[in-house]
Amino acid sequence: MAQEQIPESANKGLEGIVACTTEISTIHDVTLLYRGYTIEDLAQNCGFEETVHLLWNGKLPNAGELEKFKGELQAKATLSADYLTVLETIAKTTAHSMAKLRTAISHFGLTDAGAENITPAGVVANATRLTGAFGTIVAAMSRLEQGQKPIAPVAGKTIAWNFLNMVRGKEPTADEEKLFDTALVLHADHELNASTFTARVVASTMSDYYSDITGGLCSLKGPLHGGANEAVMIMLKEIGTYDKVDSFIDDAVKNGKKVMGIGHRVYKNGDPRAKILKELSLVTCKKAGLEDYHRMLVRIQEQMEEKKGLMPNVDFYSGLVYTALGLRPRDFTPIFAVSRVSGWSAQVLEQYANNRIYRPRGFWTGPTDKKVVPIAQR
Amino acid sequence: MAQEQIPESANKGLEGIVACTTEISTIHDVTLLYRGYTIEDLAQNCGFEETVHLLWNGKLPNAGELEKFKGELQAKATLSADYLTVLETIAKTTAHSMAKLRTAISHFGLTDAGAENITPAGVVANATRLTGAFGTIVAAMSRLEQGQKPIAPVAGKTIAWNFLNMVRGKEPTADEEKLFDTALVLHADHELNASTFTARVVASTMSDYYSDITGGLCSLKGPLHGGANEAVMIMLKEIGTYDKVDSFIDDAVKNGKKVMGIGHRVYKNGDPRAKILKELSLVTCKKAGLEDYHRMLVRIQEQMEEKKGLMPNVDFYSGLVYTALGLRPRDFTPIFAVSRVSGWSAQVLEQYANNRIYRPRGFWTGPTDKKVVPIAQR
Repeated sequence: MAQEQIPESANKGLEGIVACTTEISTIHDVTLLYRGYTIEDLAQNCGFEETVHLLWNGKLPNAGELEKFKGELQAKATLSADYLTVLETIAKTTAHSMAKLRTAISHFGLTDAGAENITPAGVVANATRLTGAFGTIVAAMSRLEQGQKPIAPVAGKTIAWNFLNMVRGKEPTADEEKLFDTALVLHADHELNASTFTARVVASTMSDYYSDITGGLCSLKGPLHGGANEAVMIMLKEIGTYDKVDSFIDDAVKNGKKVMGIGHRVYKNGDPRAKILKELSLVTCKKAGLEDYHRMLVRIQEQMEEKKGLMPNVDFYSGLVYTALGLRPRDFTPIFAVSRVSGWSAQVLEQYANNRIYRPRGFWTGPTDKKVVPIAQR
Repeated sequence: MAQEQIPESANKGLEGIVACTTEISTIHDVTLLYRGYTIEDLAQNCGFEETVHLLWNGKLPNAGELEKFKGELQAKATLSADYLTVLETIAKTTAHSMAKLRTAISHFGLTDAGAENITPAGVVANATRLTGAFGTIVAAMSRLEQGQKPIAPVAGKTIAWNFLNMVRGKEPTADEEKLFDTALVLHADHELNASTFTARVVASTMSDYYSDITGGLCSLKGPLHGGANEAVMIMLKEIGTYDKVDSFIDDAVKNGKKVMGIGHRVYKNGDPRAKILKELSLVTCKKAGLEDYHRMLVRIQEQMEEKKGLMPNVDFYSGLVYTALGLRPRDFTPIFAVSRVSGWSAQVLEQYANNRIYRPRGFWTGPTDKKVVPIAQR
């Protein structure tokens, strides 16, 4: 085999290779579609729970269906005392926030008697349980890490409202709730990114739903995937003030330094999600005294487009959004997962329904004729 | 996009697609190679620790290197009291054994201060820690589930010896140790199977070593991947006695029923690992009073080759091997992982060294022109 040509696909991250058909989300023309709806339309007109219903069922709910679905999610939002003890043990370690979340979600699966049910109804039941509880888990972990008592969810409120209240111990304003809810809608799914692909590969072995999601979290943890929004905030702090933006960009362009949150492998006209967050976040940034940071991001965006022809991706504004909402940088990637769990769930449902185990080949570039030499002669 | 032809690769599990180059393991001619050595050569002449050294470093150790490496693994074999408490909490749940192991390994990563170090030296250090402790973790979980106290590893003994002693509370004979050690060698790596591929996809996001391995476990849990050896034992019990084998096979062939542990997607002349286990297991089967089961498997093998031209894979004899060694069926897949963690480690080392994030495409088969209708009108 070593004599053959190395195939073109090797070591290119499967770029351009179609792994599956899908009807959940796609990058189409200049925008992102969920189930055929543009992300702009959904961000403006639908809440997160409505969007999750769309992703899982292929259709938007009517008022009765939405109320029922919200009730089902809400019914799973409260954590047991036993599970909170588990979270406390995990929170006490000094590990990466996503390593903790990976462990917490894996453990959450152990307490589901229906975990092994991978029929469509079984997966939807598990996805409802996990998506309903996910925000509570992330919020509880955040507070436990800071030595604070977890706050229970309030019935009749959205996942967005409850999350902000449970993390901060302070009820969100209507603007804050809308902003965070929109951020959840924007992050819910994004075609075959590495974490979604991981979840589908796990599902293709007919493993259980919680293994699929744990697998997704393992990949989302990687700095090439989640985590760029935190890097944008670090960059803003490094630059410091508005008047230093231009020289920072000049230096980056001249010396080929990476500007965080800029550029995307697939969108050519810029990430539509970044545009939505840019506009929607201004009010909350002003109220939080972070208007300067917002102006700095807008200036960086203009300069990068002018000088390099590159546009921002979703991570460019989301870190500032979360900061303006009073959230900690170490919770940014777990917050991504509060939303993305919904997309992973839709994607593994689709994988189970039309499955073939993923089993690509590795191309051998090593020797084929070695013989074991007795250890005394090595 | 929906008008385009669906590409041939879609929904075929990436069959035939080369995802990466590799120098770790490959199916070559009629056998399996690790680093260029045939599995027959390694099974006969090398122990598990020696094989792990080969997989990680690309060369077999000399006597001094092997002794040093065994010492490094051994130094990590003992679990802390705190971690044993975590295992106890996990063991108490009624979940699938692999869901428990997934959680246990994810948690083990939280207690490693060097978890986020993905330099080659960092990954080898983490892999040494985990591979050294893995057998102790699986053995402790097995005993805790049965209400027994975990047994600590004994210094100066092999991973194989210690594992059998720690699970059973009974020292293995030399034959038993050799048989189990060989089973570990045979299961250490196997090209880009789904769990290894999962571990590499996770690593491609530059996530940490423990996330890679947790991802691998999520996939190994799936019944299309791990778990077939347990199904072979169930089949043997169902058949009952030697004289009923032929009619069972006749019925299976006539009615297109699947015979467990038979057939493999890649090997054409049969899995070399099955041949090795078949021969090596006879003595231990006899001593355990399981000679009849061994005869039944040999007869099934002959009949399936004659009537369907199909040959056994590694799972066909491994379940009987583990049963003869006094191990529980629910521990079979975790035992697979005691060995395979070494191959996953080698593979993610290779991935980190020559990385590109895995990001295939999904082919859109859904609509592209939906508009949100106000909820009151749905």
